[in-house]
Amino acid sequence: MLKDTVRTGSYRAAIVNNGHLFKGKTVLDVGCGTGILSMFAAKAGAKHVVGIDMSNIIDQAQNIIEANGFEDVITLVKGKLEDTELPIKEYDIIISEWMGYFLLYESMLDTVLLARDKYLKRGGLIFPDNATLYLAAIEDQEYKEEKINFWENVYGFNYSCIKDIALREPLVDAVELKAVVTNPCVIKHINLLTAKKEDLTFDAPFSLMATRDDYVHAFLAWFDISFDCTHKKVQFSTGPHAPYTHWKQTVFYTPSTLTVFEGQAIRGRLACAPNMRNNRDLDIEITYMTENHPETKIHYKMY
Amino acid sequence: MLKDTVRTGSYRAAIVNNGHLFKGKTVLDVGCGTGILSMFAAKAGAKHVVGIDMSNIIDQAQNIIEANGFEDVITLVKGKLEDTELPIKEYDIIISEWMGYFLLYESMLDTVLLARDKYLKRGGLIFPDNATLYLAAIEDQEYKEEKINFWENVYGFNYSCIKDIALREPLVDAVELKAVVTNPCVIKHINLLTAKKEDLTFDAPFSLMATRDDYVHAFLAWFDISFDCTHKKVQFSTGPHAPYTHWKQTVFYTPSTLTVFEGQAIRGRLACAPNMRNNRDLDIEITYMTENHPETKIHYKMY
Repeated sequence: MLKDTVRTGSYRAAIVNNGHLFKGKTVLDVGCGTGILSMFAAKAGAKHVVGIDMSNIIDQAQNIIEANGFEDVITLVKGKLEDTELPIKEYDIIISEWMGYFLLYESMLDTVLLARDKYLKRGGLIFPDNATLYLAAIEDQEYKEEKINFWENVYGFNYSCIKDIALREPLVDAVELKAVVTNPCVIKHINLLTAKKEDLTFDAPFSLMATRDDYVHAFLAWFDISFDCTHKKVQFSTGPHAPYTHWKQTVFYTPSTLTVFEGQAIRGRLACAPNMRNNRDLDIEITYMTENHPETKIHYKMY
Repeated sequence: MLKDTVRTGSYRAAIVNNGHLFKGKTVLDVGCGTGILSMFAAKAGAKHVVGIDMSNIIDQAQNIIEANGFEDVITLVKGKLEDTELPIKEYDIIISEWMGYFLLYESMLDTVLLARDKYLKRGGLIFPDNATLYLAAIEDQEYKEEKINFWENVYGFNYSCIKDIALREPLVDAVELKAVVTNPCVIKHINLLTAKKEDLTFDAPFSLMATRDDYVHAFLAWFDISFDCTHKKVQFSTGPHAPYTHWKQTVFYTPSTLTVFEGQAIRGRLACAPNMRNNRDLDIEITYMTENHPETKIHYKMY
């Protein structure tokens, strides 16, 4: 993921170019991985950085911190934030790269919110501090044939039961902008300074205005990330109009094809909740209708 | 993997086009997955097919078998072959798609050999019955920069300790034929009718003759599969000269670049053994030298 230059380059711009925010400050890096964000913060002038991660990668992170001469500024802690005693009790800034596919799948956002409530000083900053989830509809005949309808005839055999399962599994894939046939609609905005864990379960209406006469085979979701507290606001998008990121976009195929006309809307709702058994999994329900298409509800599983 | 047409198409040709071998026979499908090979065998005229798999996919396989009207011919069993009582005790034919990356990584070959010893009639057939592992050397400057040397400078930081780890992890990737700068050399041949579990631990010499003056950045391994018992011998290769398969090839980067001259050989040994703690993982040691390059030994881990 270090090789995702949109991702890592945006964090670098937000942190290293904002020395006036970091100089002399205490910084907590939630899910620090190899320590790249911690090193950006140290380079930006932070007085002390604490990086925490429960993965074994933190052993390598310690080697990397030392190889780069940051061992006096950066302290690494192995463990779950929920269960671990940190060497510093209050922080000016929290930094974290917590975003998953579809923003929330396997995301660490709840841990970041916990870190904020437990460790962030009043008036402290969070990098990034805003995330926005979008939905649009796409024409995707060719891929749908390959990914979904493929199961109707597998070397002459009927695999339709797999088709039903495949349809309910959102597909993480890079989609071309020309496939998008509606305006995008904001499904969810998250302000990390104020969001609560309960906000990650939501049910949002949408209205997607068709920008041309076409067919719709799927809904498409992506997210934008913003560091609003930076001097010259740093932001990046994972949408089909923006450069490739490892998050790509998320495709939700519909069972039947919709026929849409320029200026008409696909109306509906998207409900999202952490799965009861594994809260890093997501249950997503999309309800949709058009003037010519009856209300349809599909339950998707990101497991 | 059903979408790998080289793989599935070869099994179909080997089974469905050889009705004279399957007609009226009992067949055991080891690791049957969605049941595609079992259905090929049924279509080829088998009297009874038993498919066994320990994965939950077998629940879907049962639906698929029924949707295609094979429930009277195919019996599916969920479980580990080692611990499970099968409904038929002797089989004329064993079919299995057991091959992993580098042929042996996470492979089910030891289970197939066990099935052979326990269940195959004297003179019975195994589909496929032969596998051959090859090694060559490649020029791969560009990818090595991206995959390995990348770690020397990550956004200005020294990540060399990750470089050392990355070098020891063989990379599964599709390599262009033009990258190959030596003749291939057979490292291991496995005849499934006679191989023993101990044969999967081996130490083989190689001599790779350079076909042009060039540089070498990595060794490249791939395998060929053959159904020698079929009427018109069915075989396929996963090499760089053959159409793409999901197995791709396996790249072993060398720490330093070798300079090779047309007609000269890279000589060495490749030793391969299942990992002590997890026997589906592999420990691979490659020793190599040229006239101009001292003997070097690298331990690779496929975990």
